[in-house]
Amino acid sequence: MSNNINSNEQFLKSEKNDGKEKVPTSRDSRVKVFAPATVANVVCGFDVLGFAVNEPGDEVEMQLTDTPGVIIKQITGDDGRLPLDAAKNTVSASVQHYLQHINRLDIGVEIKLHKKMPIGSGLGSSSASTVAGLFAINKLMGDLLTPTELVPFAMKGEELACGYGHADNVAPALLGGFVLVRSYDPLDVISLPTPAGMFAAIVYPEVDVPTKDARQMIRSKILLKDAVTQWGNVAGLVSGLFMNDFDLIGRSMKDVLVEPTRSILIPGFEDMRTIAMENGAIGFGISGSGPSVFSLTKDEETAQKITELQQQHLTNLNINSKAFVSSVNAEGPRVL
Amino acid sequence: MSNNINSNEQFLKSEKNDGKEKVPTSRDSRVKVFAPATVANVVCGFDVLGFAVNEPGDEVEMQLTDTPGVIIKQITGDDGRLPLDAAKNTVSASVQHYLQHINRLDIGVEIKLHKKMPIGSGLGSSSASTVAGLFAINKLMGDLLTPTELVPFAMKGEELACGYGHADNVAPALLGGFVLVRSYDPLDVISLPTPAGMFAAIVYPEVDVPTKDARQMIRSKILLKDAVTQWGNVAGLVSGLFMNDFDLIGRSMKDVLVEPTRSILIPGFEDMRTIAMENGAIGFGISGSGPSVFSLTKDEETAQKITELQQQHLTNLNINSKAFVSSVNAEGPRVL
Repeated sequence: MSNNINSNEQFLKSEKNDGKEKVPTSRDSRVKVFAPATVANVVCGFDVLGFAVNEPGDEVEMQLTDTPGVIIKQITGDDGRLPLDAAKNTVSASVQHYLQHINRLDIGVEIKLHKKMPIGSGLGSSSASTVAGLFAINKLMGDLLTPTELVPFAMKGEELACGYGHADNVAPALLGGFVLVRSYDPLDVISLPTPAGMFAAIVYPEVDVPTKDARQMIRSKILLKDAVTQWGNVAGLVSGLFMNDFDLIGRSMKDVLVEPTRSILIPGFEDMRTIAMENGAIGFGISGSGPSVFSLTKDEETAQKITELQQQHLTNLNINSKAFVSSVNAEGPRVL
Repeated sequence: MSNNINSNEQFLKSEKNDGKEKVPTSRDSRVKVFAPATVANVVCGFDVLGFAVNEPGDEVEMQLTDTPGVIIKQITGDDGRLPLDAAKNTVSASVQHYLQHINRLDIGVEIKLHKKMPIGSGLGSSSASTVAGLFAINKLMGDLLTPTELVPFAMKGEELACGYGHADNVAPALLGGFVLVRSYDPLDVISLPTPAGMFAAIVYPEVDVPTKDARQMIRSKILLKDAVTQWGNVAGLVSGLFMNDFDLIGRSMKDVLVEPTRSILIPGFEDMRTIAMENGAIGFGISGSGPSVFSLTKDEETAQKITELQQQHLTNLNINSKAFVSSVNAEGPRVL
């Protein structure tokens, strides 16, 4: 990954020589980072699968200062919905965790967060912000940790944002591409291959489905036979990614457990599925806990057509929507 | 696969020209086939995963005759436990299904079944016999169907043998290697890669665990959180096979759902696990519904050592056992 061993060694050495030195002088004190939106679950992989897209995503500008402590200096694009209080904001709180971990609470950090994607949309909005912040501070610290090592810090942010420290958004946002969270205890995150040319067609119907409520709708006990169906499909989807087999990926994108309940909260869900599948989608489903829906396609043109028709359908239902057509993000966050 | 298009065309043509012709004269009327034992579930993939081994396995000798009908002429190695009645024997019954399907009930078939593996051991004993028979008749018919197309006929045999037409033994027995049964309706069988050099260390404690009873012990309702753990592991195991990552395969070979119940029926189970893991196994678990256990290893020597120590442990418990050390079978059944 992007872990730069030489800088690490320099950094650790300078820390040993002079613990009071605020920031290593040879390094930039300012960075701007983009982190991607993510589609968690990927239909059949509830809580274990996710992938990142190149659009939308959030941006974080970070400036190191001489005044210890992490502060949120500005948030744009959130309509005042996100907390400026550094203890309550997921970006600052996870950066704080990071600094604590590397034993650099002497550092001052000023954060500007630019929300470039809808909040509460099921596209990993909090994850994108948190990951942008962590990627930025890690960059300023000389890539001290690998992207995989940043996952637990980002999970802390998710816990703050939605009451549950899940990894199926933050792991793909940090690593890019399709990611499997095999296990939470111990945390075991596996990068899966991303089929070349794959596009995501995302439509966000502007209705409110808070993650917490969406989770509570899911039954805690399920039928073993449904679970068997589900893990057959999870295994099929993973195989399809490795085999570059779009048809197998599509056949595997079925969810007998969560979708039947969650889709009730999404207006026009079944019609949007029909539109997607009749217009060449590989597969279709809910992004994370919704209300956004996504289709995977073999090319940009198909994705474009599907989002247009789905948005038209939502307009007919008097529901505003936003659409995003994007290739699958293969590399995770990037410095702007 | 081994589907020979030219012979098929010849066969179909000769059938069209003369429906009364019993067997195509240009083809052998006799064949002897080996079909492999199989390890179903592979710990985390209950009802969806399995793999084949090169030893043990069953042999079928098949002779075409002029007298329509399928008969069992001889069974050896079964201690008189298997039915000679062609309607009740899984080999003859599935061959009969096959002949019905290809509309050749005019053909006569004599079968000799040589059981070379223990019955009721959890190693796909009925599956090995059935698959050997189907592979043999298909060979004599000029490879009219592909191995994948034979799976449904073999499932009919499983239904007769254990009251449940599962595919996680017959599919790997027919296709070789690791196989995913993604879906039963419609049937969707995927060949997974077999990591080079992988060995299986199998120990069969000679106690009786009928498949039907073993299935009935499993709860029909499970916790969603356990299911999530399970499908994370299934996805991890499949990824490990594609990535040739023995460590990931091992980390994924965990079963929180079925093993805790089924292992109760297997004497010395936890001790055999300790022996396996302390002596270099990649992973360890129950083969199918037991009582056989298996370890995956990186080489033959490790597999040999593990089976010896496990058998010694069973001897100390006054339990007779059989052991098999074998490479993973990559090609399925073979003509002898």
